Amino acid sequence: MSVGLGVDTGALGIQECGPVAVIGAGTIGAGWAAFFALSGLTVRVFDRDAGAQALLDETMARAQPVMQALGRLAPNVVAPVLTTDLDVAVSGATHIQEALPERLEIKRGLYADIEAIAAPRTLIASSSSGIAPSQLQEGMRHPERLMIVHPCNPPYLMPLVEISGGGATALWALDEAQAFYQSLGKQTVRLQKEITGHLVNRLQAALWREAVYLVANGYATVADVDRSITEGLGARWAVVGPHQIFHLSAGEEGMAGFLERLGEPVQQWWADLGNPVLDDATRKALIDGMADATRGRSYAELADARDRGVVAMLAAKKG
Amino acid sequence: MSVGLGVDTGALGIQECGPVAVIGAGTIGAGWAAFFALSGLTVRVFDRDAGAQALLDETMARAQPVMQALGRLAPNVVAPVLTTDLDVAVSGATHIQEALPERLEIKRGLYADIEAIAAPRTLIASSSSGIAPSQLQEGMRHPERLMIVHPCNPPYLMPLVEISGGGATALWALDEAQAFYQSLGKQTVRLQKEITGHLVNRLQAALWREAVYLVANGYATVADVDRSITEGLGARWAVVGPHQIFHLSAGEEGMAGFLERLGEPVQQWWADLGNPVLDDATRKALIDGMADATRGRSYAELADARDRGVVAMLAAKKG
Repeated sequence: MSVGLGVDTGALGIQECGPVAVIGAGTIGAGWAAFFALSGLTVRVFDRDAGAQALLDETMARAQPVMQALGRLAPNVVAPVLTTDLDVAVSGATHIQEALPERLEIKRGLYADIEAIAAPRTLIASSSSGIAPSQLQEGMRHPERLMIVHPCNPPYLMPLVEISGGGATALWALDEAQAFYQSLGKQTVRLQKEITGHLVNRLQAALWREAVYLVANGYATVADVDRSITEGLGARWAVVGPHQIFHLSAGEEGMAGFLERLGEPVQQWWADLGNPVLDDATRKALIDGMADATRGRSYAELADARDRGVVAMLAAKKG
Repeated sequence: MSVGLGVDTGALGIQECGPVAVIGAGTIGAGWAAFFALSGLTVRVFDRDAGAQALLDETMARAQPVMQALGRLAPNVVAPVLTTDLDVAVSGATHIQEALPERLEIKRGLYADIEAIAAPRTLIASSSSGIAPSQLQEGMRHPERLMIVHPCNPPYLMPLVEISGGGATALWALDEAQAFYQSLGKQTVRLQKEITGHLVNRLQAALWREAVYLVANGYATVADVDRSITEGLGARWAVVGPHQIFHLSAGEEGMAGFLERLGEPVQQWWADLGNPVLDDATRKALIDGMADATRGRSYAELADARDRGVVAMLAAKKG
């Protein structure tokens, strides 16, 4: 595979990139398949589940207007081909995206089968959020081409992918992966060493822990805690990350000035943050508070509003 | 003062609301003054600092296009009047926004002077981020009308205000404050009991703690941690809060289903989160990483990009 860095046209020519194989067509796999196909790539999807085709079709239909709104829909789109034959999916593939269930033995079993078919330098990118890449690499014939490429869900909407190599991953493989996803318009971040939850899930867990504490201890309602993010910090975080916010808050003095003046107080705030437990009372407070916050609005209504809202944010960000 | 709930025209008529007094014209006070004035209110600002007029003028100039972009600029705007005479600022005011330095004795001293002038039911809203409202109320003649109304900075840009009463604050005062700020287009959240940092600063500190941990321990660069927010979680948080994200992640089963299936794993993630210390090595990693992340871009350039970006996010959110 030979792709240039910094290409931002939304599609690689097929002459530059052969078929992409997607292994596993659950929610994440179907999302990846739709993303690759709508980016103009040839996609073959391996899955033996009876419902796979329906989910794939549904995901393509949902992803198409999203990719269009984001200006990333390729002119010539061919629907992903679903197959129950691993050989059909993997033979000739120049990139393999694995999105199997989060069970080590399932993934390892398929890797053995994939390695019997794929060329030795073909990248295998696992979508795993919970298994360390070094664990996935154990027993592989060519572990150097295995890494985690974890998307923000859904992959056809969210720009971010987290790339995390294991102990045996080669630098060329990480570089090639980064170039590949960037050529498709993705924003890539690279873990310098593996850690449970990568970046996104850890940061999300950290924020939610304090959000739960504030509700569980009666400081604010679920609705108000959520609103303090959507109407306060969220719009800023869509533009400036948590480090740069403080860097800029100190004006010309930047991060050094911020730490000089507020380093001590920040440590006191940290010490004061909560450490909630998801016991019965806390669960009840969250469930009841969420019911109050969403009163009268169905799942479909809320999910639709979320998706339209996020598309609008990302489109505005691009402009 | 008599204002209706749910008015969303961007301006109260002057017949409905008399002059607003802003006490203290530092960054936050000047921001409030610009916000009120550009919303169409009559504003009198008390400050004895020699630089106050210049900061006020500069803030008005910066706030005007922002309020326009957000569709909140009143048709008839009168510039705030700066005075060194507290009596001129407070006499006849129907709302008092205090934005003095974060020192208890300064605030208490001014409250005594203000209470000698203002009508007993005139609200006094402190912008304090760090002092508990109950502490501010000690010694007041009419503590029931004192509360904290803490803006996201700058007040003319960010929709959120946090309202926190102290032990002596009256319910009518909190209701009246909420109606007042909502009538000016603000999104209000109400603390049910006071806590250091209210909601926003606590949630921000919680996220930053993990962001610092990831950098300090070499898992990712400052730039990549920030990007994992701006390109991942941020756009979603601008639309859906941290609680609702998990509520929706479980589909029709909602928060109850999420907790049932993922409550245990979440507690394990929480236990694995970092607890960094801002020691010399960590400070150096943050300062160096920030320098790498912002290489070649000046403070003015970065701050301008942030402000334009946030305006675009908020405008898109409104649409």
